[in-house]
Amino acid sequence: MEHSSLILTLPVWIESFITRQTFPLTTDESRMHFVIGLALENIKRKSGGPFGAAIFESASGKLIAAGVNRVVSLGCSIAHAEMMAIGLAQQKLGTYDLGSPDLPAVELVTSTEPCAMCLGAIPWSGIRRVVCGAADTDARAAGFDEGTKPSDWKKSLQQKGIEVVTGIVAKEAAEVFTAFKEAGGEIYNGRLSDNS
Amino acid sequence: MEHSSLILTLPVWIESFITRQTFPLTTDESRMHFVIGLALENIKRKSGGPFGAAIFESASGKLIAAGVNRVVSLGCSIAHAEMMAIGLAQQKLGTYDLGSPDLPAVELVTSTEPCAMCLGAIPWSGIRRVVCGAADTDARAAGFDEGTKPSDWKKSLQQKGIEVVTGIVAKEAAEVFTAFKEAGGEIYNGRLSDNS
Repeated sequence: MEHSSLILTLPVWIESFITRQTFPLTTDESRMHFVIGLALENIKRKSGGPFGAAIFESASGKLIAAGVNRVVSLGCSIAHAEMMAIGLAQQKLGTYDLGSPDLPAVELVTSTEPCAMCLGAIPWSGIRRVVCGAADTDARAAGFDEGTKPSDWKKSLQQKGIEVVTGIVAKEAAEVFTAFKEAGGEIYNGRLSDNS
Repeated sequence: MEHSSLILTLPVWIESFITRQTFPLTTDESRMHFVIGLALENIKRKSGGPFGAAIFESASGKLIAAGVNRVVSLGCSIAHAEMMAIGLAQQKLGTYDLGSPDLPAVELVTSTEPCAMCLGAIPWSGIRRVVCGAADTDARAAGFDEGTKPSDWKKSLQQKGIEVVTGIVAKEAAEVFTAFKEAGGEIYNGRLSDNS
């Protein structure tokens, strides 16, 4: 088997982008502005789709890991911003359970409400809080198929003890899709979803 | 940012395991036996959870990529067998769309019906057919929280033009969980799911 390691890499600009930002970010709004900034930079640099996400320590606002969409650039449909941020945070902290009692509580801040895959990934990750910017419907309106989610996806997380906050800096978050369209970004989807 | 590459690696035994198998595998049953074998070997080697999966060319039965659960061993909640197989297949073929018209049709064969995350990942991947062994209820009975899935998850895939076949070599596939329990394997879940 010539390929036994799946390697999912953030764009090289991430490091300098983070260095330019002042941390900690202590409010939902400031964290959302940061992930919107990631999404916009990802568009500008043509390094992936119009989505940014990050894992923060909830109380302190310390950044644990950032993520941007890398689907087209890496050729990997799994490489959504939320998945990158979750995986990198776990790799950094050395645990599959970000809700471990040995760790401070952490949260996922994402520029758009999660698609079906990322929604499914959240309970597994141990995250205790999810903060969303643009709505699922904004992503769908822009042409991204968010997939088939449980009818009340927020409740499905809340029932597992995960707090869900939506609509943070929502207008700016939704405008990311306009910027993507204007930049001529590729709307990708699963093959058959293109026809639905 | 000291960690900007998420690296998800299969266990070292995978290569020799694949070498010992004769390919192509031309039936659903033979492909299922292969992924059940991956799950059992993963238990025996203590390299991850009791799940195996693979991507095959549907018509020829050629193996594209194999995957096993690596959640505890890699400390990454994303590293389900299906996600590993999908990601590695895409990396090998150089595309996020396994349903590309330039490629032969491919399918996912998985030892257990997909959890909510992997279910969400399937339409994004471009896969045209999913073949399952053990039932979602077998995994839940063994203590694994499969998450909140759409009420008719098979239909949700079929509506996207993805064929779903369940119950292939189902008894043997379900017995994987017994083997895992007997080997003293760790039932992991998201933090709060443990309490539900």
